[in-house]
This record gives sequence, C-alpha cells and structure tokens, in this order.
Amino acid sequence: MEKDGGGVAAGEWRFQPNESLMAASSLSVRGVLTEIVANIDNESEDTRPRIPLGHGDASVFPCFRTAPEAVDAVVSALRSGQYNCYSPCVGLAPARRAIADYLSGDLPYKLSPDDVYLTNGCAQAIEIVVSVLARPGANILLPRPGYQFYAARAAYNGIEVRYFNLLPESQWEVDLDGLEALADENTVAMVIVNPGNPCGNTFTYQHLAKASSLLVANTAKKLRIMIIADEVYEHLTFGSNPFVPMGMFGDVVPVLTLGSISKRWVVPGWRLGWIVTNDPNGVLSQTKIVECLKNYLDISCDPATFVQGAIPQIIKNTNDDFLRHTISVLRQTADICYDKLKEIDCISCPSKPEGSMFVMVKLDLSRLEGIHDDMDFCSKLAKEELVIVLPGCTVGFKNWLRITFAVEPSSLEDGLERLKSFCSKHSKRSSSPAIRS
Amino acid sequence: MEKDGGGVAAGEWRFQPNESLMAASSLSVRGVLTEIVANIDNESEDTRPRIPLGHGDASVFPCFRTAPEAVDAVVSALRSGQYNCYSPCVGLAPARRAIADYLSGDLPYKLSPDDVYLTNGCAQAIEIVVSVLARPGANILLPRPGYQFYAARAAYNGIEVRYFNLLPESQWEVDLDGLEALADENTVAMVIVNPGNPCGNTFTYQHLAKASSLLVANTAKKLRIMIIADEVYEHLTFGSNPFVPMGMFGDVVPVLTLGSISKRWVVPGWRLGWIVTNDPNGVLSQTKIVECLKNYLDISCDPATFVQGAIPQIIKNTNDDFLRHTISVLRQTADICYDKLKEIDCISCPSKPEGSMFVMVKLDLSRLEGIHDDMDFCSKLAKEELVIVLPGCTVGFKNWLRITFAVEPSSLEDGLERLKSFCSKHSKRSSSPAIRS
Repeated sequence: MEKDGGGVAAGEWRFQPNESLMAASSLSVRGVLTEIVANIDNESEDTRPRIPLGHGDASVFPCFRTAPEAVDAVVSALRSGQYNCYSPCVGLAPARRAIADYLSGDLPYKLSPDDVYLTNGCAQAIEIVVSVLARPGANILLPRPGYQFYAARAAYNGIEVRYFNLLPESQWEVDLDGLEALADENTVAMVIVNPGNPCGNTFTYQHLAKASSLLVANTAKKLRIMIIADEVYEHLTFGSNPFVPMGMFGDVVPVLTLGSISKRWVVPGWRLGWIVTNDPNGVLSQTKIVECLKNYLDISCDPATFVQGAIPQIIKNTNDDFLRHTISVLRQTADICYDKLKEIDCISCPSKPEGSMFVMVKLDLSRLEGIHDDMDFCSKLAKEELVIVLPGCTVGFKNWLRITFAVEPSSLEDGLERLKSFCSKHSKRSSSPAIRS
Repeated sequence: MEKDGGGVAAGEWRFQPNESLMAASSLSVRGVLTEIVANIDNESEDTRPRIPLGHGDASVFPCFRTAPEAVDAVVSALRSGQYNCYSPCVGLAPARRAIADYLSGDLPYKLSPDDVYLTNGCAQAIEIVVSVLARPGANILLPRPGYQFYAARAAYNGIEVRYFNLLPESQWEVDLDGLEALADENTVAMVIVNPGNPCGNTFTYQHLAKASSLLVANTAKKLRIMIIADEVYEHLTFGSNPFVPMGMFGDVVPVLTLGSISKRWVVPGWRLGWIVTNDPNGVLSQTKIVECLKNYLDISCDPATFVQGAIPQIIKNTNDDFLRHTISVLRQTADICYDKLKEIDCISCPSKPEGSMFVMVKLDLSRLEGIHDDMDFCSKLAKEELVIVLPGCTVGFKNWLRITFAVEPSSLEDGLERLKSFCSKHSKRSSSPAIRS
C-alpha cells in the first residue's frame, strides 16, 4: 500500500536524520504540552473553554494586550519602506543604541551599542550563546528546576549539562555550595534565570552578589566561568525583592545578559531579543568570545528589520502606565493563584511568586488515587477538566507542576477551581474525611 | 593599560570560542563585502554616491518598492492583536495552507499544508536543512560558483562539501557527469539553485528532468540522494526559459524546496521563508527526515507571527502587476548590464542573465596592470570609484565577479560607467591602443 519512492526501500536512501537532533527535541515544553493536549477528547460533550495554564504566552489575553504605542511604532517603521531590507548581522545601529541606553539605566556603568547584539527573540539568544560556548568535553551548569530550552540546545550542540539546585525552602535561591561542587576544569558557564522561570522568584541583590563573587573569589580555587543571565522577565516583579540585573556584577565576572521585548511588552510573536556583553573588563573580547559570537550571527538569521527599526520608538514612546498595568494584573493573578492553591490538599506551594509568570507547586501523590506521576496528573487533568498545566518533569522537577498565572483573572479562577475539583475527585478516601462521612 | 578581568589573565578563563564557528564565518558574502567597503576612504573628497552592485537586496531602490497590498496585509495582522503570540514551531496553519496552494499551481500534484514549514527567511531554511542532514562523515554536493551560505553552514555542522561545476559555456548547466563522479556512499544531497545565484541562469525543464532522473535511474549504481532545491528567486525570470520548479520531479527523487517572500515581494527584511517537502512517495517521512526537521524546528526560532498571519492576504491580494513590474525592471537592468559589460575589454560575460538578480563575469587579469586578483580588483574599485562588486572567490570562482543588476537603472548605468573607466584606467598599455597613441 505504501508507496516507496519509485521502487527504492527507505533504507537504501543515503540521507539519514541527524541523531543529535532526534535526541534533543524530546525535552521541549512545546512538545510535552502538545502531548498533554492530545489527551483532550475533541468529540466530548464538555463545552467548557480550555484553560491554558501550561505555557508562557500572556499575549492571547485582553488584559495583557500590548501597548498601542508599540504597535504604532512597528506600523510606522513598516510603512516608511526603509526597513524592507536585510539588516546588519549584529542588528541595526539605532536599535542597539536604544537597548544599550535602556539597560544602562539599571547598571553602575554605561553599555555601548557595540555591547548589544539583536536576536530573533530570547530563544535565538540562547541558541547562539550555547553554540558559541560549545566545544568537545565542555559542560554547562543549569538550574533545576529550569527552562529546558537550554538543555535541548546543549544536547544538540554536544555540551554536557550539569544541574545545580534551586532551593524551594529558601525562596528558590541557588545552592551555591552544590554548584561549586559540580564544576570542574571543563565547566564554561552557569545560567541564572531571574526573575525565575519556572519558579516565579526574584533573586535579592545579596544573593546575586554572593553568587558572582564566589565565582572569582579565589584565583586558585574558584570557577573561572562566565554567567549567562537570562533576564527575559526583567522588571516583571511584584513582590518585595526588586529586580537586580546580573550585569551589576559584570566587573567581578563576565556576564552575557539575554533579554527580549517578548515579556515586558507581551509580544513574543514579534521575535526581537538580544545578547548583551556586561563586561567592563573586556574579558569576553580577550577570550575571543565576542568574535565567535559575531561569526555565529554572520551565519544565522536575523529578527525582522522593521521590528528592529521600531525599537527606539517602542522604548521611547511606551507609557510607564503600560508596565504598571501589566505588573498590577500579574500581582493580582499571582495572589489569586497562591490563595486558591492553598485550598487544595494534594498541592503545596513553597513560596508565593514574586516575578515572571509562573509558580512551581509540589504534588503529594500519596493523597491521590490512581495518579502515578506528574505527567499522568497533567494528562488526566487535560482530559477531564480541559485545564492544561506543565508537568514538573519538563523542568527537571518530577512530581511538581508549573502553573502559569499570566492569564485573564476570570479564566485563572475558573481553571484553578477545576484543578481543585479534579484533585478532590481523585483524592484518596482516607485523606478526605468530607467524602468519607 | 588593558584591564584584565579583575586580575585574571584571558587564558585562565575556562570558556573558549567554538572552533568550528571560528572557521565557518570567513566564507560569508556579508563578511567579504564589509572588507571591501572598508577600503573606501571616508575622508575622501569624492562625493559621488556609493553604488552597491555587490549584494542581493533590491529593496532599497524605489523601483523595487514592495506591493502596497503586502504592507497593508502585515499592518492589518499586526493591528488585529491576534498575532502577538508565539506561533507553532511549524508555522501558522493558514499561512502553511496559503503557501501550499500558491506553490501547487506549478506542480503536477497538490501540496498539503503539512508539506510546508515556515522559516525565518530562506537563510534559516538552509540552516535547518543542513543541520538535519548532518552526520559524521556525510558529504553534500554544492554548485560552483554558488551561494556560500550553504558551505558556511556545512562547515559549522561538520559536513564535507564537494563542489560540482556549473558550466559557463553551456548557460551554467550542471556538469552532471562530474557531479556523479563526486558522489559516494556518504553523499546525502545535492543543491540546485534555480533561478541561479550567482549566475543569473534559469534551468530548462529538460535539464532538470535529466538531473533528477539521472539520480535514480539505476538502482544499483546511481546516487540515492535528495535534491535541495533553492528556489528563492522563483518566477524572477525574464529570458526564454520559464521557471520550472524542481518539485515537478518529486516523484522521481525526493525534493526539499526552499523559498521565501524575500525576493518576489522584495522584502528580505520581513524574514519569512519556507521548506517544502516535494515528495509524493513519502520517502522523507519513511527515512525520518520529516521527524528530524520538526525536531529542529522545535528548538529553533520562528518568523514573526504577525508576518505569518499576513501571508494568506499577501498572496491573495498582491496584484499581478506588481510581479510584472518587478520583472520588467529586472529585464531592463539585465539588458543595461549585459550591453554595458560588452564595452569593457577586460571583462567577459558568458551568457546574458535570464533570472535572479545577478550575473557572473570573467576578469581577464592579463589585460590589467597592477591588479593581482578579483579581491584586489574589488577593493581598488571600491576605493577609487565607490562601486561595490562581489569578488568571484566568495562564490568559489576566483578571478570572476558577481554583479547585481537589481538596482535603480540610473544607478546601475552610473556604476557600470565607473566600472568601465576603472578598467580603462588600469588596462595594460599594450592592450589599450587608445592610451598608447
């Protein structure tokens, strides 16, 4: 029945898929969410809306609609006809300058436009940085729980990944002793995601200072690695800790800061991000990392030129009220989330989220009947309640869940109510006196 | 004087640049053009405009301004607020469908939307296809002269490159015997660029049919490789040969077709391209190439969602007059170019361009004084006449030149006149009786 390429068996063709790619992709959040959504029965009579608490895209909700000034800036760049062309590999100069100025506001030194390299979102920034650091035998330190795109790109590029822990009992701070024990002479970098995905934490100045100075404190013994600071959620904080950029410590240890307009402007689909060298001592130039970065940009794709062209106006024109509004909605939905989760017996939340769009919560499987792990929990939740939540295994924390609260408040309440009723329906009788009576 | 990273010598840091990247980038057109432009003396009193005949971006010229309908479609998608979100890794479904329908018009079978994968321009399509095919020991056959981005990505991915010749004396047809002699059991694919960059040729139906059937004609002996058909210049033809898509022969040999809106709509900065499986026999699924392709898309960046969202309207609404106008300007500039080049003694042009935006011409260094190769020629031309042309070494043809004629006609005439006077100034007295007299 199957046609076979004009009489040629598949095995006779000389091309084969790249094996490292076949391995790399199983880690992706998108892949796991697709698998979970596939459990939903499209023929079901359940007509309730699906509630997506699994991914990190707030842009689909009216309360997170981007600033009109930002849209106007892109339309104006497009209509000008000046940005239909290719851009330089490193990005358009005015956009690099605008981002350098924007980020310098939080730093003790001034960034130059030459410190800024534009990328197709933060995803490409990660791809580039991991590719630049790849060499046989190298290893990279990643946080657990963590955003697995780093691990997927590391697997593809053949860099070994070693995980250091974020400590739920200490507001998800880095286990610095554990981190130091993991590193050896082949360690090239560590990744810090702040504000945190998936933990929703914001690191204090003291913790970041300790992390960065620990890394170079003792020439003879300490790590000599760079810090990759993923600050895509910069300024999306609503707790007691203000956002502190890791670049603050760029004179102690070289920092590559990754960011984008995706989260602050709630426009992940516009695909505009950056890599910034926070390195007043010039270490990254001396070690030729900058040259290698430029070489990679030379052979990779660029963000749309007209979005680059709009960047100065997007940054300049966006009203402060827009960020304040976004943060106030996030504070409200974080509160809803935290309060509602407290009502659910089999779920515990170690700390209230203070940044980003996520919270990590722990499943107590011993209180549940017929659910054998987090993936099973999420699959059944999707099937029975049309609520999509990310299993912790996807971020390296088995039997936890990552819940996105960057959702329209009414949908969030609906989704959490369904989560609660799901847990109640599946709770063990012994742990549920109300049902037993 | 140099700061040194807080008392740490560069060599003590544990990160190092990726060596394959340090090697890959030297091949890029952008890199070489930057080097050539660097010869221009910015302090010079020469106030004539610079004439860029070196790169492939027509969008900067008024006569190649994109269709207003295309701009309107993007503005409308952006203003709708529906496309601020992430897109699926493979691209938005309506855009995939619109491209499948658009391309099916030229094929003997109908493409499905599932055959289409959206990419960040054709550059990312090349990146993806080369990455998917990479495996230790594999080699890929590339045309010479050819667009070196393939070679750069192949070098980065560790695939060996073997060059087959395009024959200037036969309207740049593929040297099929030579190609066959190059291939061995580790050859996985060959690349066909049609209409041709840098040669400006358009392959006939007969030649493509011969190429594709040769490849599978004899189960025991022939090549068993796929064809990567780079058709980014599809329909930009203005000679006697109509454009024939390689997908026409997808039932003979599996074809991955690469394309984009960059050239036909003259919007390379919009960054929207595609990979299409032209494979009615399902070979690419059976060999898991499709699965691997999806995996790579899963861990790579996407084109801007709102540009994807605009694709159905861009394709549907763009007036046929727009393409006709573009082609008529290209025909006119190709004529200007061909006629003008005939007047220059030390340059010969083997055939008149019939497609794309380029022509390859041969330098006769024996007629020139003090010019030792194509790079030297281009550097001095830029310095003395502010005309930028690509040296043939960049496309694998030393001592040839690639000239872009997708330029405003008046600029093109000016640029070619300056080229002529440059050649005359540097011509050897013996070959230039006018000066000798």
